Formats: sequence, structure tokens, C-alpha cells
Amino acid sequence: MKNTFGTSVSITLFGESHGEAIGAVLDGMAPGVPVDEEFIKARLSLRRPMSAISTGRSEPDPFKIVSGVFHGFTTGTPICIVIPNMVQKSSDYKELYGKARPGHADYTAYCKYHGFEDPRGGGHFSGRITAAVVAAGAIALSALSGVGISVGTHIARLAGINDRPFGDLKGDLDLLKNREFGVLDETVADSMTEKILAARKNGDSVGGILETAVLGVPAGVGEPWFDTVESLLSHALFGIPAVKGVSFGLGFGFADAMGSEANDSFTVKDGNITTKTNHNGGINGGITNGCPILFQCAVKPTPSISLPQETVDFKKNENTVLSVGGRHDPCIVHRARPVVESITALTLCDLLTGRFGTDYLGAK
Amino acid sequence: MKNTFGTSVSITLFGESHGEAIGAVLDGMAPGVPVDEEFIKARLSLRRPMSAISTGRSEPDPFKIVSGVFHGFTTGTPICIVIPNMVQKSSDYKELYGKARPGHADYTAYCKYHGFEDPRGGGHFSGRITAAVVAAGAIALSALSGVGISVGTHIARLAGINDRPFGDLKGDLDLLKNREFGVLDETVADSMTEKILAARKNGDSVGGILETAVLGVPAGVGEPWFDTVESLLSHALFGIPAVKGVSFGLGFGFADAMGSEANDSFTVKDGNITTKTNHNGGINGGITNGCPILFQCAVKPTPSISLPQETVDFKKNENTVLSVGGRHDPCIVHRARPVVESITALTLCDLLTGRFGTDYLGAK
Amino acid sequence: MKNTFGTSVSITLFGESHGEAIGAVLDGMAPGVPVDEEFIKARLSLRRPMSAISTGRSEPDPFKIVSGVFHGFTTGTPICIVIPNMVQKSSDYKELYGKARPGHADYTAYCKYHGFEDPRGGGHFSGRITAAVVAAGAIALSALSGVGISVGTHIARLAGINDRPFGDLKGDLDLLKNREFGVLDETVADSMTEKILAARKNGDSVGGILETAVLGVPAGVGEPWFDTVESLLSHALFGIPAVKGVSFGLGFGFADAMGSEANDSFTVKDGNITTKTNHNGGINGGITNGCPILFQCAVKPTPSISLPQETVDFKKNENTVLSVGGRHDPCIVHRARPVVESITALTLCDLLTGRFGTDYLGAK
Amino acid sequence: MKNTFGTSVSITLFGESHGEAIGAVLDGMAPGVPVDEEFIKARLSLRRPMSAISTGRSEPDPFKIVSGVFHGFTTGTPICIVIPNMVQKSSDYKELYGKARPGHADYTAYCKYHGFEDPRGGGHFSGRITAAVVAAGAIALSALSGVGISVGTHIARLAGINDRPFGDLKGDLDLLKNREFGVLDETVADSMTEKILAARKNGDSVGGILETAVLGVPAGVGEPWFDTVESLLSHALFGIPAVKGVSFGLGFGFADAMGSEANDSFTVKDGNITTKTNHNGGINGGITNGCPILFQCAVKPTPSISLPQETVDFKKNENTVLSVGGRHDPCIVHRARPVVESITALTLCDLLTGRFGTDYLGAK
Repeated sequence: MKNTFGTSVSITLFGESHGEAIGAVLDGMAPGVPVDEEFIKARLSLRRPMSAISTGRSEPDPFKIVSGVFHGFTTGTPICIVIPNMVQKSSDYKELYGKARPGHADYTAYCKYHGFEDPRGGGHFSGRITAAVVAAGAIALSALSGVGISVGTHIARLAGINDRPFGDLKGDLDLLKNREFGVLDETVADSMTEKILAARKNGDSVGGILETAVLGVPAGVGEPWFDTVESLLSHALFGIPAVKGVSFGLGFGFADAMGSEANDSFTVKDGNITTKTNHNGGINGGITNGCPILFQCAVKPTPSISLPQETVDFKKNENTVLSVGGRHDPCIVHRARPVVESITALTLCDLLTGRFGTDYLGAK
Repeated sequence: MKNTFGTSVSITLFGESHGEAIGAVLDGMAPGVPVDEEFIKARLSLRRPMSAISTGRSEPDPFKIVSGVFHGFTTGTPICIVIPNMVQKSSDYKELYGKARPGHADYTAYCKYHGFEDPRGGGHFSGRITAAVVAAGAIALSALSGVGISVGTHIARLAGINDRPFGDLKGDLDLLKNREFGVLDETVADSMTEKILAARKNGDSVGGILETAVLGVPAGVGEPWFDTVESLLSHALFGIPAVKGVSFGLGFGFADAMGSEANDSFTVKDGNITTKTNHNGGINGGITNGCPILFQCAVKPTPSISLPQETVDFKKNENTVLSVGGRHDPCIVHRARPVVESITALTLCDLLTGRFGTDYLGAK
Repeated sequence: MKNTFGTSVSITLFGESHGEAIGAVLDGMAPGVPVDEEFIKARLSLRRPMSAISTGRSEPDPFKIVSGVFHGFTTGTPICIVIPNMVQKSSDYKELYGKARPGHADYTAYCKYHGFEDPRGGGHFSGRITAAVVAAGAIALSALSGVGISVGTHIARLAGINDRPFGDLKGDLDLLKNREFGVLDETVADSMTEKILAARKNGDSVGGILETAVLGVPAGVGEPWFDTVESLLSHALFGIPAVKGVSFGLGFGFADAMGSEANDSFTVKDGNITTKTNHNGGINGGITNGCPILFQCAVKPTPSISLPQETVDFKKNENTVLSVGGRHDPCIVHRARPVVESITALTLCDLLTGRFGTDYLGAK
Repeated sequence: MKNTFGTSVSITLFGESHGEAIGAVLDGMAPGVPVDEEFIKARLSLRRPMSAISTGRSEPDPFKIVSGVFHGFTTGTPICIVIPNMVQKSSDYKELYGKARPGHADYTAYCKYHGFEDPRGGGHFSGRITAAVVAAGAIALSALSGVGISVGTHIARLAGINDRPFGDLKGDLDLLKNREFGVLDETVADSMTEKILAARKNGDSVGGILETAVLGVPAGVGEPWFDTVESLLSHALFGIPAVKGVSFGLGFGFADAMGSEANDSFTVKDGNITTKTNHNGGINGGITNGCPILFQCAVKPTPSISLPQETVDFKKNENTVLSVGGRHDPCIVHRARPVVESITALTLCDLLTGRFGTDYLGAK
């Protein structure tokens, strides 16, 4: 299925960084979900470069919903969102073509598309396509909100600096909603920013870890063996460029835990079954248990750096050195935050629609 | 698709721990792949409990291939492998039913199946079903072997103890083939075993990390945005019970790396393009670059422990304490090794068949 | 997906005519559907050869449900049904292999599987595999019955002889339930049987048309553009060997109708919206309108005939003449009836589960 | 998958008749297929109303390829084609909303989307969306042409008048390429046109049968049991509004044929295996045999007629009479011709790419 993800609710992505437009088709969304263009704009602005610590490229996202929304609500038919690309300077790409940027898809795209790929600005592999994910994800977030589900992500770690862990999740998710730079402990924002600026100064870049919490998903969602919540979320999350690890609950920390520590005891609280701890991230046997879903994404440092790098010219099959000019994003961890939330929301809409039917997320 | 994974080559799992049989249907495998029942047996024996450090339950796997193989070769039509369950003692399940084992799917299965699920021995959520994965995976491994691809996994960490990292991959994979307890550095096997035995003694369990290498996959395999190699592998790997994290290359280590460290420089070696380092685990932009694929799986400690645990009786909606009798596996990390390799092989067969056509893995 | 059909509820088929066993995996069925083995047997017997007018081969179907059913109800996890093949005489297949039976898949299977296919008795292409469809379909029919949906098929035409058209559908479906040879007008049964016996006498075979009605499907089921009710039903129906045409409502009769004749006027009857006529077979724009679903399947005459036929030996790439010995089915139209009903039931279970969620067909 | 069809090559449709735009995303097409905008225009013009015999509405199709094409060739990444809707008069839809046009999806869309659907001009159910199919189909036809495959369709029957049957297929397909009104025997064009004009005069409409031939598909393409060539083609063809029947080869004529007549004898001709007749439409056991693929589509008379019709107002749940004003298409059979060819081409690209890999249809 390639550029499409999802069964009951699906997203299809298209576009190249310097082509006519990028966009997404969101299909299967229930009819009657309110579509608020201001909310979509706000979500897109979270993904856009922050002046101080990101690339200086201007990257406005004047999206247009060309189908599937009528009088402010989803119709139930495919929603196509088109984000035109502004004029891009790419006159010099021909000269550069063949010089593979390390860590990028230049060489692998060539192996796959035999030179027919659009190489300008990374083409279809550009992080720019995530703008379409965020626009579609905003509608998914609205749909989830209608059934009492909220999604939030913080920068758990960046360049070796930790945010405080999630505490009171409801409060923490409220906090994060209003934060452009998504940390829970605002005092670490400065240290992280310093690391980013230092990386920029050195023509280098830094990576980090995003941690996401989802509140309000009912118990009993997910399918053995291959459509577990973990399987579907990780499938979609690894579609995000730069994500190189996905883990749930204690994640790789499980490796050092004893079973007696890792197991979450069930308990009856206010008449409802819940768990005392949440080491398993709200998922047992691939199925939600009604507790918050918790997971982490490892985000690698932006491969685009201005330091000179050894590489090859794959057209000439010879070694070369590459110094990529222009301004680059020294960090995309904070910008990936709304993307992770969008992917999460889209995946949950798919799971919930499959579980409870095509009307579940719509107007009651 | 629930219990089916894969597009061009797919596996469908069925069965419950104490039911009539478990099994798998492997569809889309190329015609002409040799099927060696001895090899399947050998693979199954790797998954079977090791006397010293595993559960004492006897668990023979007398599999039967009931379709899709003719005169020792795959026909190209669906291969159904049935593994009958031996007589199981489950007379007492009715009494226990309702008491959710922490860390298990008992409660989530109830939420999903409303009490119609077969709860005996974990039912469809039992790790026993992985025997069918291993049997089907053996055929997938043979198919890959025919095109020069090999897969190997070592126990990178267990109960806080590290194996040495992968070095010369070809040599290391050869080493691992013959090791029942899959570590590269045999001296750590004893320390790990001690930890397992100590856990058993305390009625507890331990977790770990498996690391897998795949050699020989050509460059240009994988699809943006949603059928990346990472997406498909993680999707399938998270289907394995107890896997709670999947990462590629440096994985969560990317969080602390600079871009200049994380990027893998390309270089021409013996006329071919390769990379100097392999921090990205052989994948750029979701597509293979021809270098070894490298990834890690976090395996949580077996949730089945004999220590008393607080939990609920979900039928009575009340708190209770559970002491699970019988003998339990204090560690499944080593037993998950062939399962991870099988899932990997099946996923690669799917990717390669989609990329190069339905004859690619078959007889030439 | 090859041998799998369905998204929310799916069936996967396996097996060869003279192999160890054939069977099906039915996945996604709601938990709590009653499974009555006697009903499955009764359905299988409808498919089995009728002494007088079918092949003389004995073909018992001692099916075994090896998973997914517990205490007489579906569990919600995959149901695997295995039907072992009895000892088959196929010692002489090697000699015959290469001589393509006209109208059969012998040659196309060779083109696809390069000689690795199991050719005995048609292998995986044998009509025998439909026994597994009928067994799984019986469970689907039970599930539909639980929500007030019934399915029935009559032999609308056979060897040029017409049955009377459907009249009072509820009554007609009741009639058909108890008829081994499924015609509405019992007086035509004799004429049809005579045609079949005459064909047998001449070493020839006859074809026909099956017409199916489905009662009780609610309005609003089906998806534009590609998961219309017509799309999904035809997809699955064309999987049945010998089906070469599928049409809905007036079908090919639409070609000669005026719009004013073909349109079905809506009307309010007893407070509910329905149509005065049902030329569109209960489907508008690919979506059910609450009226009975009506469709026809063209079934070609059995290609297995004993008359000598010109053909090729594809192994030698030369012309030859083939006289297939043994006894053959001079007609399979009547035997295809339960198969069509099963495929219909499975497809509707898929559509309804997708529309209303995974619990819809299960215990309330 | 709803508005998406295809596995290896897929098309996703979006848009409403009077919305911002309609369009398609074509994914999985091989890199290096030439994209000729003039050819796309020519194909779109075949679908556009013909002045004399079609609706008078002006319906230009100024399509824009916004992604996936670079320097005149497909890149291998998703091709999004957007066709903006021109200003449409739909001010009066509110008043009409609720009055279900017989034979249309108005009522079923309401049942499915609960009043959130865009009802203007039929919304997402409008035949207008087929323009996007034709645009994408043009690229698929070019891809097939590159591997020697051609597709052609004639109006086999219209309002009771027959075209001559296909004869020399290569010559006939050449003929059809240049015919706006696609009949083989030009003398019947006038009689058909008269029937159409008479229907228009009476405020009525007529239906017909389209017959399609595909030349050049190699033997061995298609998958048992559920991805047969017939299954996939019919699935996609039934997505076309107004198609109510699909049959292959003799189709419903098989019902009256003897096996000895229906079977196609194989023969060696010029060293290659072929069949003497082609009653099975080039498909045995769901797999191509190398002969031309032949099938028929029943196209119902346009449901939009100006004669007054009895119907309901589903918002008021009461009977009413509807006289649809404006000019209507008295026949869409001839306009459906390029749509059927496009759907056929897209389906074949999917089948061939799945069979021979993702490079098969691209530049060599």
C-alpha cells in the first residue's frame, strides 16, 4: 500500500518538496466531525520552524481542503488537503544530483527509482510532506476529542538533557497544548535550546526522544496477532523520517526489570478496573486496557548538516566530499512533536472505527 | 487484517494454547523453494524450552504441512502448517477464570471478546502460537538463503548483562547458527543463566534485548511513506508477545548523538557503494541501502511469575490476590530469538516479492 | 492478498485436491456466534455430489474445527477448519502431466508456478476447495441469521430451462432451504435433471445461472467508490471456479431498459422507506437501500468432459488429443448453490462488521 | 479501503461534483513511464459529453498533475491529479434536499452519512469523479503500452441495437482508437444515436453493453482464489456508477452452452501455445492464458430523467413526486467507454506489478 496507511480510516500522502504541491487524502473518517481551519493552522504552526532554533527557510502552509468537508463538517467521503509549494530555488539541483547526502534517502531513492525520482529538496522523502500529515491529523484529533480522547507529546530528552517524566497526565497534556517548545519542565527548555544553538553554530545537529500519552481510549481495542495497538502505531510512526526507535511503557527499560516490577497490578478503583502502575503503556497482549497509552519515539539528529562530509557521487560511482550550503535545521525533535501526535491520532481513528464502526467518531 | 500480516507474502495465524491445534497459513511464497522438514524441526527446537533455564512443561511440536508443498518444494499456493496440541491439563481454568494475571492479556481479551474467549493457557494470546511462526519462518529463511540473504540474532542484553556487540557479521551469524543459547561471547552465557536461575528461584522473571542482523538484502527495497522497512518490520515484530520496543541502528542512542556522528558516510569499496559506518542500520528514508539491516527488540520479563500478585477478578469486579501455581518460564528472551528471526524472514520475503515479483524467491 | 478475502471479516483458503487436507481460516468473526456442527454438515451435504446427476466419486467431508470455537460459540479469534482428504488415486498423474485439460487451470497454473504446482486432481484449483468455503460460510450464515438476515439461491436457468422467477422472497427462501435441487418450481426439476443426464450420457456437460436473494440487510451499507456492495460481492463470487458472470438486479437486462423502467420509485410503506420495484437489486450507488439484494451468477458447464478434446502437451509444446477417463460431473450448477450462498454470507459479514463494528454480529 | 483500489498499483479517488475539486492519487506506478498531457486531454475528451447526444452542461476538465511526475516521466512516487470544479449553480440544492432521485444514491448516502453528505450534483457519487479515473487511467494505458499491451472497448449493444462482434482484435482496437462514438460497425452508430435522441425527446434514457478486449497480457498473471483476474477487474468495474453486470468470455451465454462448446482447445501455433477459440475470455482458473482478455459490462440507463417520478422526501418521510429540471444525459454508455478502459488499465498495472515487480512497467 506504500503511501497509504490504515484500514478503516486511512491516509494517503503525495507530493515532493519542490513540486507543485504536497497533500493528503484522509478516507473513512466518520461523517459529522467538525473541521476547524483555525485549529488546523494552529497545528501546522507547531510544525513550522521556530525562528531562533530552526532553519531560516520560510515555509508557509496555505492548505486547501478540496473535498470531503461540507458546511464545516466531515461528509464521510475522502478529505483531500492540498498544500501548494511556494516558489522554491532548485535551479542548482542538477549539478548536485548524484552526491548522496549521508543519512538521507538520496542514494536509496536512486536505487529504487533509477534516476527518475525528483531529487529537489529531498523530493518525496522531504520532511515537508509531514505538513500534510499534521493537517490531516488535526481532523483526527478533533474526531478523537469528540469521544473524549486526548493526545499529547513532550520532548522527553534532547541532546542528552531530560525533561521531567509525565506526572498527572491530564494536567500535563493541558500544559503541553499551549507550549510551542513542548517540555513539561520549562526550566529545561533553555538548556535544550542552548544545545540546539551550539549545534547550529558548529554546523551540526542534535537528536532526542519524544514521549506521547493518550488518554481516554476504552479497553478492548486492538487485534491479535498483527494488528496490535503497538504494531499499528509503530508501523505508522516509523513512516516519519528520522524516527529510528519506538517503544511502549518501560520500553527498553523492560530489559533490566524483573517480572515482579514490570507487571502492572490490576485494581478496582471507583468501581472500575484499572492498574496501579502503567509500565506496559496501557496495552496488554496488544489490546488496550483502558489506562493511558504511553510510548516513546527516538528521533535521530537531522542528517542535513553543513559540516563537510565524505560521501559518493553515485552517478559517477566515485568518492567525493559534500558541503551542503544553505541554512539547516539543527534539530527537528520539537517540530516532530505535532507529527507524532497526528500519526497517533490517525492510527487511533483507524483502530476505533474498525472496532466500533464507521459512525463511532462522528456526530451522535 | 488482524491475524494476517503481509501483502505479497503473508502469514495468517490461528489456534489457542489448549485447543485442538495451532498453525499458520503462509501464502504468496514463490514456487520452487525447498522445504526441509529437518530444518523446520531444528528451528522449532531452538524455540522449545531449554531444560535448565526454562519451564519444565513438555512441549513437543509435531507439525504437519497439510498443503502447498509438493515433492519437497513450495508449490506457490498456500502452505498450511498445523501443530496439534498435546493433551493439556486445563480442568481448573473455570475456577481461575476472571482473575486477571498482571501483564497478561486475560483482562483485555475479556474486554474485547466479552467472555467468549478461550482462556485456557492464555488461549490465542499464548506464546505457544509462536511455534507456528517459527515453522513458517523456517521456509522463509530457506527462501532468503536461496537469494543469498541470512538472518541472525543474539541476546544483546539479559537481566542487565551485555553480550559483546556484533563485529564481523558474517562470522558472527555463523557462530549463532549453532548456539542454543544465542550469545556471541560465550563467557557471558553463564552469568546470564545464573540470573535466570536466580529469578526462577525467587518465583520471578527477567527481560532482555535481542539484536538482529540481516545480510545480503539488495539496495532499493522498501516503500515511502508507510511501507518502509522499519514500518513493516516493527509492525510484525510487535506482534510477538513480550516485545515492547523496536529500534534500528543506533536506535534510542540516536537521541544522544550529533548529526556528524550519526550520519553514515558513503564510500566506494571494490567498485560498489557502501557506507563506512552503519549507524542507520542499513536503511535510509525507509529503504535499504545495501548494508546489513540492524535492529533491536526489547523483550519484557515473562509476566507469568509465581510470586503472589495483587489483581482483580474481572467477573466479580473486585480486588483479589493471585498466586499462579505450576512451573513458569523465568525468561523467554532466548526462546524469542528464533521467533524474531522468523518474523524478520517473513517480512523480508514480503518486501522482496513485492519489489521483484512473485518468482524472485523461487527456483530460477 | 491472493487466497484471502475480506477486511473486517476475512477468509483464507488452503489445500489441494489430492493433498493432505483442504481448509479455511475465518478471521474477524464476532465473538459469541453459535457454531452448530450439524448445520455445517447439512450445508456440506448440499454441496456434495447428488447420486443421480453428479459424479460418482465418493467425497465425504469430515471437517474438524481446530481453533476459534469454544463451548459452541465463536471466540472472536481465527477459526481454522480443516477437511482432510481421503486417500485419492493419483498414481497416474505423472503420465498425464503436461496435457492441458481445456477450460481448466492446468496450463495457466504451469505458466504461473513453473511446474512446481501440485497437478493431481486440479490441485489448488480444484472445486473441492469450495467445501472449505461452505464450512466457513455456514458460520457466516449463522451470524447473519442472528441479526435477521437470510440468504437464498435458486437455479434460475440450467441448460436452457428457466425456473420461475423469485416471487414472495421470504416464502421462496423458506422453500429453498429444504430443497436439495434448488429450484422454486419443482416441475422444472425433472426437465433440468433430464438435460443433465443426457449430457452425462454424451460425455458432455451443461451450465446455468444461479440467482441469489438476501433479505434483512439494513440501508446504508457499502462504500464508494471501490468497496461497493457490488464490488465486494463480485470480487468474492468470481473466486468460485466456473463463475464467469455476475450481475445485480436487472443485470444485463438493463441494456434494453429505459431509465423510466429501470428506476425504482421510492415510497413510504408502513412508515418506512422502501422501493416499489427492485430492479437495482437493493443497491444504489453501491450502498444498500434496505430492499432485498438480488444478483445472478453465470456458471459455465463443467470443463471436465469425457469426450475426446484437442489440446496441447505443454511440457512437450506439441498438439495432442485428450480423453479424460473416469466419471465426471455433467453439471455443477446445483452444487455451486451453497458455495454462492457461503461467499455471499462471508462478504456480508465483512461489510456489516466494517460498518457497525466487531461486536455487531456477535452475542448481544 | 473504500475509495482506494489496488495493492501494488493503487488509485485513490476524492472529490464531490460541486466541491472545490475532484481528483485521484495514483500510487505504485513504476518510475520512468512517459506522461503525455496531450494524451490525457484526449482521453478526457472521450469521456466529455458529445454535443448532439449528451447533456448540454459544459464540463471542461483542466487537470493539474501536482506530484509524482518529473521531466515528463513518472517518478515512482504518488501521482496526484487534481481537476478543479468550475463554478456550479447549486444554490437550489437545499430546497431539493430530501427528495430522493430514483436510481440514484441520494437516499443511500443519507442512510450512510446521516445528512452530512454533500448532496449537490450527486456529491461524491457523481459520475463526474470518473474524470479523475480517466486521467489516471491514461497514465496506466501508457505504462501498458510500453510493455506491448493494448486495451479497447466498443459499444456492443445500446438500446437494443447490436454492434458487430469483435473480429480481428488488433485491427478492431486500432479502429476504436479514433472513434468518438465507439462502435466497430459505423452503420449502427446512426441507429443508436437516433435511439438516444428519441429518449432525450421523451425525457427518458437508454442503457447498453460495453465489451472490452485486452491484447498482450502474458500468460500466468492472476492469483487463486480471490485475486483472480476476474475478481479484480469486476471489483474495480463495479465501482463505476451505472455498471450493474460484468461477465467474461461467453459470460451469461455459458448458461446455454455445452461443455464441449464452451471449452477452448489449446493448440501450438508458430511454436507458441494458444487456444483455438476464446470463449473463456483469456482466463482459466482466474489466471491469464496469454489469449486476449474479453469481458462485458452492463451499463444501466442514466437514472437522471426529466419525466416526473414518484419518490419520497426522506427528510419528511413522506411520498412526493419529483420532476428533475435541467438537461440530462439520455445515455452514458458511450461516455463510460474510456472509464471502463481506464479501470481496466489500472487493474492490469496492479496485477502485472504484483506479478513481475515494481520496475516491470517502467523504463528498462
